[in-house]
Amino acid sequence: MRMVDLIAKKRDGHALTKDEINYMINGYTKEEIPDYQMSAMAMALYFQEMTTEERVALTMAMVESGDQVDLSDIEGIKVDKHSTGGVGDTTTLILAPLVASVGVPVAKMSGRGLGHTGGTIDKLESIEGFQVELTAEKFNQLVNDQKVAVIGQSGNLTPADKKLYGLRDVTATVNSIPLIASSIMSKKIASGADAIVLDVKTGSGAFMKELDDAKQLAKAMVDIGNGAGRNTIAVISDMNQPLGYAVGNALEIKEAIDTLRGQGPEDLYELCLTLGSQMVLLAKKADSLEEAREKLEESIASGKAIEKFKAFITSQGGDATVVDQPEKLPKAKHVFEVKAQKSGYVREIIADEIGTSASMLGAGRLTKDSVIDLAVGVVLQKKIGEVVNKGDVIVRIYSNQENVEEVEERIQQAYSITDQKVSVQPLIYDIIN
Amino acid sequence: MRMVDLIAKKRDGHALTKDEINYMINGYTKEEIPDYQMSAMAMALYFQEMTTEERVALTMAMVESGDQVDLSDIEGIKVDKHSTGGVGDTTTLILAPLVASVGVPVAKMSGRGLGHTGGTIDKLESIEGFQVELTAEKFNQLVNDQKVAVIGQSGNLTPADKKLYGLRDVTATVNSIPLIASSIMSKKIASGADAIVLDVKTGSGAFMKELDDAKQLAKAMVDIGNGAGRNTIAVISDMNQPLGYAVGNALEIKEAIDTLRGQGPEDLYELCLTLGSQMVLLAKKADSLEEAREKLEESIASGKAIEKFKAFITSQGGDATVVDQPEKLPKAKHVFEVKAQKSGYVREIIADEIGTSASMLGAGRLTKDSVIDLAVGVVLQKKIGEVVNKGDVIVRIYSNQENVEEVEERIQQAYSITDQKVSVQPLIYDIIN
Repeated sequence: MRMVDLIAKKRDGHALTKDEINYMINGYTKEEIPDYQMSAMAMALYFQEMTTEERVALTMAMVESGDQVDLSDIEGIKVDKHSTGGVGDTTTLILAPLVASVGVPVAKMSGRGLGHTGGTIDKLESIEGFQVELTAEKFNQLVNDQKVAVIGQSGNLTPADKKLYGLRDVTATVNSIPLIASSIMSKKIASGADAIVLDVKTGSGAFMKELDDAKQLAKAMVDIGNGAGRNTIAVISDMNQPLGYAVGNALEIKEAIDTLRGQGPEDLYELCLTLGSQMVLLAKKADSLEEAREKLEESIASGKAIEKFKAFITSQGGDATVVDQPEKLPKAKHVFEVKAQKSGYVREIIADEIGTSASMLGAGRLTKDSVIDLAVGVVLQKKIGEVVNKGDVIVRIYSNQENVEEVEERIQQAYSITDQKVSVQPLIYDIIN
Repeated sequence: MRMVDLIAKKRDGHALTKDEINYMINGYTKEEIPDYQMSAMAMALYFQEMTTEERVALTMAMVESGDQVDLSDIEGIKVDKHSTGGVGDTTTLILAPLVASVGVPVAKMSGRGLGHTGGTIDKLESIEGFQVELTAEKFNQLVNDQKVAVIGQSGNLTPADKKLYGLRDVTATVNSIPLIASSIMSKKIASGADAIVLDVKTGSGAFMKELDDAKQLAKAMVDIGNGAGRNTIAVISDMNQPLGYAVGNALEIKEAIDTLRGQGPEDLYELCLTLGSQMVLLAKKADSLEEAREKLEESIASGKAIEKFKAFITSQGGDATVVDQPEKLPKAKHVFEVKAQKSGYVREIIADEIGTSASMLGAGRLTKDSVIDLAVGVVLQKKIGEVVNKGDVIVRIYSNQENVEEVEERIQQAYSITDQKVSVQPLIYDIIN
């Protein structure tokens, strides 16, 4: 087999066989196939279709290129959740204890990553003593005992995907549905998931700005997951404005606590119940979505969910008293209020701009080595469709810097206020399975 | 400027500016732009169009990436000829003295290359004493004195093209009309041509099997040449069978001598007059194609052409007596006759197979370091459309090996003989300017 022939085959629109895809991914991982051939292939893939068989084969070849997490010691169906990323997305923090509280085992591996705020791991480290470095044995045991544990990424998962992603990033071949879908699914499968719930965001603050693209990506991932023997469903949700109110690490922990008590932002609560119901159903802890939802609602109402959060924190060495005393979380020195410059209805809140504001305050990483300020961030006070009067506080800034002029300016630019009543976009656009 | 943005721009079907193309080619030549970005760009170019402006800019950027031959000391309009390559193509050997004999300056730089036989340089070295390594001064002086000189390739011409071609070869991106056209034209322009006549072959023995593809390539090259200020025309000629009779180095010298005397194969003679007339016209040594052709015919008939060949050989140190005594050329030890296995009409002669036969005898180079046997090759005795009787000699093999069974077999396979009368394809399909 020669890579140049495989490139030509794909260039001409033919499907590659599983053997050919394995040859390509193995060779690339071992550096027997050079970057310049792989990038030509990536560009050919950009222009040509890949069948579902090809996508599954590519995904599994990437899974097999490195370590695979073994969760077989954990009882039950391990359901993982993945979000394609947005601003103020606190769902993982809420869903982990919430679905665990109704018996779904949550064995979550999470990264730190770059972004407007830290990842789930960083957010959890806002809690004094919380330990994310666990041995595999301890991790499995915690999930069996508590139904929930979160661990930092370790091991050499999907090295082929890492290498290929790095190459795509510098060769203008990121934006290919089959390649994005295979990349995401290979990481989920290598992390040991039996079933997967995907939260595919769409809108101005999402990677997929257009609903049609989001649907395509969702369909591609669901097909790969099911093709690889992992029950997979995707929820397509709105990211035309930040999710919930809080954007910042400790601030989102606080919001998660509120939501687990049934007192969080409406959109965040609704999305968590939608995603959570799917997780409960896939884990076979309910016979229908309705039953799954009822169980989750009951768990929140009865306090079971928040108690599970406390138990989870305690089991990983954290100080669970923050749940009842959130003032113990890292606190910013200064709070500034951003006020509406006119009266009307909120028409738009550019999510990326809000994210960047949080990032400017120090909530996120710009490079791998950046140090995150866990205390800082922004909390929205008004969301799309709401009435504001001139002078109303629209956003609170939590900062350790005294000068936040630039951040304020950016927030003002992110908000559009209009005279006409605004109709709010749906939160959930579609469910794809 | 960032290469990744240029790749994305081309991927999305937009035209690159001249500055962008210069940035890309300069950066690639200096190894500031890595192969993996260039191969992604090449694949994007495979799928997307390039405007004529882009093609000209790409060609000139490659011209400027290395040395450029300065022919300004040579009087008159220097017209170069380029063939896209076929089997038994002896036109350069004939055209150089022929058009020189009517006053067109021919300053030919020629490579050795790989192929079924050697290049023009190798063929000329069949002549005892012929010297192809000349200083630039000596070369220019010879062209001014004799109107013709041939020199081996020297200097670092179009390094960007060499590098890019090598990359395209291993990334399945060779087959792109804009890239092929720019590659050819950059070499011609860097070699100092003021005007260019292209011989674009089409048919089973050519790179462009289909007439439409050949026309597209011809049009692309003509547009680049004219766009770069070099008057360029293209002749589209048939390569469904070898051109002329001889395939081999010394054998082709003999055929060139015959043709310069008006006694060569009809198709070779006709193609040389067609290409030659265009060269004479572009060099402004005639006011019309008809006048140009008359001049060339007169030169052959009067013996001027063959005398120019002798003078050309002498001026480069060769033994011109071979022209009158071709038995002085390198001679193979053995001659074998391949005979028709049935009676009928020649329907097909697969040119590539005939070329490979010559190559198997040692007439061509398989690798850069192969040693060529100048004496060997094959001479066709029957061409498409001719009547053959069972037992007639169809090909003569000139060999220094005693066993030529495999070569004979290949030649038998190359020939198809049919009962029905065969209509012969035209030799010249089109002229594009």
